[in-house]
Amino acid sequence: MALIVQKFGGTSVGDTDRIRAVANRIKAYYEHGHQLAVVVSAMGKTTDKLVDMAQQLNENPRARELDMLLATGEQVSIALLAMALDGLGVPAISFTGGQVGILTDTKHSSARIQEIDTSRVRPYLEERQVCIVAGFQGVDKESNITTLGRGGSDLTAVALAAALQADECEIFTDVDGVYTTDPNKVPTARKMKAIAYEEMLELARLGAGVLHSRSVEVASKYGIVIHVRSSFNNAEGTRVVPEDQVMEKVVVRGVTLKTDEARISVIDIPDRPGLAASLFNRLARADVNVDMIVQSSGKENQNTISFTVPRNTLRVTREVVDAFLAEQQAGSVEVDEKIATISAVGIGMKSHSGVAASMFDALAKNEINIEMISTSEIKITVAVKEEQGRKALEVVHDAFGLGDQPAQS
Amino acid sequence: MALIVQKFGGTSVGDTDRIRAVANRIKAYYEHGHQLAVVVSAMGKTTDKLVDMAQQLNENPRARELDMLLATGEQVSIALLAMALDGLGVPAISFTGGQVGILTDTKHSSARIQEIDTSRVRPYLEERQVCIVAGFQGVDKESNITTLGRGGSDLTAVALAAALQADECEIFTDVDGVYTTDPNKVPTARKMKAIAYEEMLELARLGAGVLHSRSVEVASKYGIVIHVRSSFNNAEGTRVVPEDQVMEKVVVRGVTLKTDEARISVIDIPDRPGLAASLFNRLARADVNVDMIVQSSGKENQNTISFTVPRNTLRVTREVVDAFLAEQQAGSVEVDEKIATISAVGIGMKSHSGVAASMFDALAKNEINIEMISTSEIKITVAVKEEQGRKALEVVHDAFGLGDQPAQS
Repeated sequence: MALIVQKFGGTSVGDTDRIRAVANRIKAYYEHGHQLAVVVSAMGKTTDKLVDMAQQLNENPRARELDMLLATGEQVSIALLAMALDGLGVPAISFTGGQVGILTDTKHSSARIQEIDTSRVRPYLEERQVCIVAGFQGVDKESNITTLGRGGSDLTAVALAAALQADECEIFTDVDGVYTTDPNKVPTARKMKAIAYEEMLELARLGAGVLHSRSVEVASKYGIVIHVRSSFNNAEGTRVVPEDQVMEKVVVRGVTLKTDEARISVIDIPDRPGLAASLFNRLARADVNVDMIVQSSGKENQNTISFTVPRNTLRVTREVVDAFLAEQQAGSVEVDEKIATISAVGIGMKSHSGVAASMFDALAKNEINIEMISTSEIKITVAVKEEQGRKALEVVHDAFGLGDQPAQS
Repeated sequence: MALIVQKFGGTSVGDTDRIRAVANRIKAYYEHGHQLAVVVSAMGKTTDKLVDMAQQLNENPRARELDMLLATGEQVSIALLAMALDGLGVPAISFTGGQVGILTDTKHSSARIQEIDTSRVRPYLEERQVCIVAGFQGVDKESNITTLGRGGSDLTAVALAAALQADECEIFTDVDGVYTTDPNKVPTARKMKAIAYEEMLELARLGAGVLHSRSVEVASKYGIVIHVRSSFNNAEGTRVVPEDQVMEKVVVRGVTLKTDEARISVIDIPDRPGLAASLFNRLARADVNVDMIVQSSGKENQNTISFTVPRNTLRVTREVVDAFLAEQQAGSVEVDEKIATISAVGIGMKSHSGVAASMFDALAKNEINIEMISTSEIKITVAVKEEQGRKALEVVHDAFGLGDQPAQS
């Protein structure tokens, strides 16, 4: 018998038929004798519909009231799922975020969990009632309803698993695990059996990891095993685990591709402390999301800073940069509008030298020119011309043996 | 400056346009300098839709989970109304039943309010924020969400008005007040300016009073003036007030008609203590809602009991009665399938004699035969053949001068 936290997303509970299917799935677990806490999101498009109504009444609603509104979505799901289970003869009881003891700060729409008081839910688990918990929400200490922002329901599940010291946290989703790269782009991509927290974090930050980085951070902090798997079949998915539990040691665990980026190079600006900070502060104030940043020294006492931004923010980026250069009365700007970035992620890099060289070599052999390079402890990112992005992804995926042999670890 | 509690029903907040209209109306009050607490119901058909989803998953869902589900309806309304007000520049904040401090017992789906702790909402009222409160719901002492059953949102408004010691409780609805009788049936029916609690209670129990009797009981207990008025215009409606505040003394305040009833007479049963109790206990167990009950002595040591029931429960009523008589090995049954009941209600009856006589006289003059008579302190009810019901209503309404002169008091 294990204590398992499960999480089903909005697609999995999209209508009453799907809720019934989820209930049947939970029933099978229940009959194995497990203690179950089940976190659910709002049904399908509910959140969109609620936001739409809000917009009709106020284009810029207060976050407190938006949280009050959106939290109803999960509340509907938990009540219906509890009823469905009850109808199947499985004892179940639903809890809102507040009722299950999720205390957050007061930052509406992106609240952070401060504490989970499990004293209310624990007795129900012990008498083997399935506890159905509203994801994405909590209450602040004044009992105002708060929501956790993007990836909030996953975060509820992982944090609850930590608070309950659960044996595993299963995230049921519309993909069946984490792949070495996007299988829609590289057909030889393979599903991993396991991935380390740090690797998953890098993939999540690259937007390619199924899970939101906040959930992975919490899982890592408390050592919770997350099992990412499909809500539509019973296949084993991918387990996100502590580094020492990943059986097979590989150098690179996964490779990602990001397109629709642009590169801006600010050339020959004075090599003066604080100048780069000034530029990136301005960009932050203009809500430009800067991705890679590379600085290299060119002429003496002069610098060149290159960075990438999402292409749809290129116009505002140029305005900020132009204003900056006008003020400095120095430097010039160079833009490449169509850039793709390829990242290779793996804890194995820490102990293997020559990983960057292998990657550059593979790209060179395929006549793909590297525009920018950036490395961190377990990640190497290169920027290339966008039209070569897909090819570069394949080449790198292949170079690290992720495609031609079982990458499962 | 007054402290006013207002309540808007589901039709009044049926879509975002109507919510905006309600917000504009509240704004006008706000600009008069009033402190406002506004209770709202779920939007239009929301509750029906939620119940329908529940039924698809469980034909007999647990009341706790149904309350969890249905409470979301009001929560959506309060958030949207608060946003709409905010958009009009009126500071507003929403509260669920639990947040506003409505503590109930644990009887899900028909919980009773035990206490309202206004300490949370009071400071917001004092700094002149409009407090938007979810009707129909509360929490028990374990913070399970409960609902108050039929007429629950009115009850929330009246009970909140009592707890806040509000100056008035305005119930906005789709009719513009309380009439001397149903204006759809009697064109000369008039809107009353005021009606006493006791009179309103009788009308409510007769199902003809706009308000549910529970709300009137609470208003009466705490001396809260309820102002029933239209949500679609600014006309003054009807105030429900303590007896001594009804200016014009009339004998009969209002007249009601109930159709689709059937009369059952149980004839010549032994005059033995407990026999009537036994019969009506059986009917209660069979969920038959008995309305009028009249007993008269016939032959020596024998009784005849007549009563009315909704016609659609006649079949089950007959089964119960037949079984009862078979057991007693005595008596017989007589049924009139098509009965209407006319009730005249007025506090004035207490001090005026001859009210019953006037009523019977008026009916007799119009050749309407009376099948049953039942009187209470401020109510006289007669049963007549259903086809004469409408005529009887008109005649009685007229006999007490409710139609031919201003009945406003």
